[in-house]
Amino acid sequence: MPKVLFLLAEGFEELEAIAPLDLLRRAGIEVTVAALSPGIHVTGRCGLTVHADTLLDAVAEHTLFDALVLPGGPGVKHLRADPRVRSTVLAHHAGGRWIAAICAAPTVLLDAGLLSGRRYTAHPSVALELPERLGEERVVIDGRILTSRGAGTALDFGFALVEQLTSTGQSHEVSQAICA
Amino acid sequence: MPKVLFLLAEGFEELEAIAPLDLLRRAGIEVTVAALSPGIHVTGRCGLTVHADTLLDAVAEHTLFDALVLPGGPGVKHLRADPRVRSTVLAHHAGGRWIAAICAAPTVLLDAGLLSGRRYTAHPSVALELPERLGEERVVIDGRILTSRGAGTALDFGFALVEQLTSTGQSHEVSQAICA
Repeated sequence: MPKVLFLLAEGFEELEAIAPLDLLRRAGIEVTVAALSPGIHVTGRCGLTVHADTLLDAVAEHTLFDALVLPGGPGVKHLRADPRVRSTVLAHHAGGRWIAAICAAPTVLLDAGLLSGRRYTAHPSVALELPERLGEERVVIDGRILTSRGAGTALDFGFALVEQLTSTGQSHEVSQAICA
Repeated sequence: MPKVLFLLAEGFEELEAIAPLDLLRRAGIEVTVAALSPGIHVTGRCGLTVHADTLLDAVAEHTLFDALVLPGGPGVKHLRADPRVRSTVLAHHAGGRWIAAICAAPTVLLDAGLLSGRRYTAHPSVALELPERLGEERVVIDGRILTSRGAGTALDFGFALVEQLTSTGQSHEVSQAICA
């Protein structure tokens, strides 16, 4: 069973975290939500507080998951400022694992030097910061980096990740079950 | 500014609650999430625990909101079994307020006698229980009852509610902002 790690910071975009979490867990994938903050209660940009499963500090430093998910929202500034996030991203990339980032979160991959020469997408609000290979598709996959545009594409983002981690058939089954 | 009340029971479907909550708050609508349970921590069907804003018992009995939202998921059995939910639904209906139900939650409206002679939709898993005027559209509006099919139509559900409570323009603005 594939294992996926979500990184949650204060100000995360609720739908961008919860849509992929919901679809991945429905597909039988083991999801661990890790909070950057000192406690497991994390409040999103729309004011909803959720419980993470654990703290980022409690995730063993050299543990690699099959995929790492970075939701967007104003909380991306905390992801970018945190050296633990950078090292987690780089370790997963070096280990050939999936990295999935949506909305403003692809800027974390930019900071880590993972976007050069790569096709990707992101929210238009961060387009000026990003190099020119920014696509306008709802989801872009290049190598094992999967990017998407915003809360309105969060389901596409989640389905694409389910498909890569399991199969097209499994993703279709979840889609049918939820009337997507 | 319109005010909306969400009713959250253990086992609620995360996306069906959080997609409309996110869109409504982005549209500037005041959303109150009330838990049925004795505490404000409520765990959804995918294992995510969220904080409600208040308890249903703390919402003054005769307070009417502009809309009442009932998410689906296995938690619907708790909505159906709770006389406070039934009386809240009936009070909002009698007061000409919107009632929005998704997935299995339209069965709560069935129990309250609000579906007879009305067009609506719901999740196919509860179709056998429902009278024959079940539509297959992603969202059905009949009078002030707005229904939808499941987690995969939760964004459509949220946008339809934003549009009814504000305007098509406002709904379009939110849609643009999140790359829907």
